Amino acid sequence: MTDSSLNISEADQLAQECAKHMYENDAAAQALGIKLVQVLCGSSILVMTVKGFMLNGHKTCHGGKIFSLADTAFAYACNSQNQAAVALSCTIDFVNPAFEGDTLTATAEELHQGGRSGVYQIKVTNQKQQLIAIFKGNSARIKRSVLPEENVLIKEK
Amino acid sequence: MTDSSLNISEADQLAQECAKHMYENDAAAQALGIKLVQVLCGSSILVMTVKGFMLNGHKTCHGGKIFSLADTAFAYACNSQNQAAVALSCTIDFVNPAFEGDTLTATAEELHQGGRSGVYQIKVTNQKQQLIAIFKGNSARIKRSVLPEENVLIKEK
Amino acid sequence: MTDSSLNISEADQLAQECAKHMYENDAAAQALGIKLVQVLCGSSILVMTVKGFMLNGHKTCHGGKIFSLADTAFAYACNSQNQAAVALSCTIDFVNPAFEGDTLTATAEELHQGGRSGVYQIKVTNQKQQLIAIFKGNSARIKRSVLPEENVLIKEK
Amino acid sequence: MTDSSLNISEADQLAQECAKHMYENDAAAQALGIKLVQVLCGSSILVMTVKGFMLNGHKTCHGGKIFSLADTAFAYACNSQNQAAVALSCTIDFVNPAFEGDTLTATAEELHQGGRSGVYQIKVTNQKQQLIAIFKGNSARIKRSVLPEENVLIKEK
Repeated sequence: MTDSSLNISEADQLAQECAKHMYENDAAAQALGIKLVQVLCGSSILVMTVKGFMLNGHKTCHGGKIFSLADTAFAYACNSQNQAAVALSCTIDFVNPAFEGDTLTATAEELHQGGRSGVYQIKVTNQKQQLIAIFKGNSARIKRSVLPEENVLIKEK
Repeated sequence: MTDSSLNISEADQLAQECAKHMYENDAAAQALGIKLVQVLCGSSILVMTVKGFMLNGHKTCHGGKIFSLADTAFAYACNSQNQAAVALSCTIDFVNPAFEGDTLTATAEELHQGGRSGVYQIKVTNQKQQLIAIFKGNSARIKRSVLPEENVLIKEK
Repeated sequence: MTDSSLNISEADQLAQECAKHMYENDAAAQALGIKLVQVLCGSSILVMTVKGFMLNGHKTCHGGKIFSLADTAFAYACNSQNQAAVALSCTIDFVNPAFEGDTLTATAEELHQGGRSGVYQIKVTNQKQQLIAIFKGNSARIKRSVLPEENVLIKEK
Repeated sequence: MTDSSLNISEADQLAQECAKHMYENDAAAQALGIKLVQVLCGSSILVMTVKGFMLNGHKTCHGGKIFSLADTAFAYACNSQNQAAVALSCTIDFVNPAFEGDTLTATAEELHQGGRSGVYQIKVTNQKQQLIAIFKGNSARIKRSVLPEENVLIKEK
């Protein structure tokens, strides 16, 4: 089974199975209250509400929490083809502050996915559609599937 | 008072006052168990132990937690001259995984500090001195002091 | 005259005047054979053909030449509002090689422009619409106009 | 022959052979007047003088030329173990301008080199030891040698 043998809805269905499996094991995302809105082949949309414990001394959301949201959206997008990938490097630009109670949406899109290396862009916006941060992630596939092998075997019957 | 009027130990003492003030207000750093080992003028050393809640589905430390440690070291280094600065953009390279129980050390050094813009490098290593991540932070000063004004006035008497 | 007082076509006309002025003084862009296809407010499209002198030992286009094309597109986009800006930092991802004779197109778009800081993305593609490189530029305005003052005075009469 | 079987001087000698071979085929570096000062295992020092044709409209050295110098130093450092590597992504921070007649020195050091991925830092300074730019390069090895195979066979007899 190659990617090209999948029609769009099969690719998106696979992306959703990968996301479901990843999320069940993603204690860090759950602890931050990150929710999956949509995961499709090569893309994802996640949301997180800024809580009191996420604030720094300026009463704005800590950069590490915004990074975590964007990095999580990156992970769901770059693992959406059932080929496990890890983050090699990331960049983030902080363009506007986020405040307690803000609902942040991270939208990940694939800019490039080669056989091994991928480049993804994630935009983080608030509930007013203001841009909060721009994230770029470089991923590398590690020759494993995302789903446990038995799931894939069942799927391919 | 300009930077050049400070001798080295005064500059380092100011850095330590800034760090103490920042840490008291840094709920996010405290929640991650980040401890300050040393903060001097333009540099900092911080440690964090990888806890169970920091792990992802691969049982390695979530990139967002490593980012948060490095980003915090960056903040203490770029705010160490009592001129408040914010992160404009950051890059992080993940070169080795970190596991539960690892003690991570983030060492921040100033690569460049102009009148407004700064560039800092932070290396994150584990207890075996293995390199875990390389972080670069670009900061911008925002024309405020780090310490409350009354502290500075007392200091300058 | 503020930006908001310009309607779209005036903003684009100003972008074109800035571009014309910049290009006349841009010996480096001219030496690389870079041509302006379109410069509008916050965006630009430039092309460059890969010549023999641009090749490295692998007979592919040197990264520095692709960077130069993207960086030039960045400059025309972030200076398009007649507020002179300089590059603070740039990142480039090389995703496919370019070969002699290829026509490369750099398309710059504004991701964010605040009062001082800007973030722009430039995609470089070849004549087959294959993605060659992804560039991100962070700019800072320097409180000068792009056009000589007399031009602006004439314009504002 | 593995890297660990080389003592330091053999590793450095191999680095110099790789550099010599690369430079002979590097028309772009030669055209910019880039000279090799020293290439050792994992590091390199290169110099370039800023010429008139490298200037932009502000009469400062074009960012693309500074990038090219740093990128070239990166290439010689990450290819110094006779395992061919290509640039995946690069970041550059421009911290001070360079002017006509300045002699720029690029000093590359290895921050990390795994089996495949590498991270290198290059600092560009002028003749007054002022920092001009900070460059970070991420490389990937491509399973080829740098030296032609016959050279390596002769070497290993």
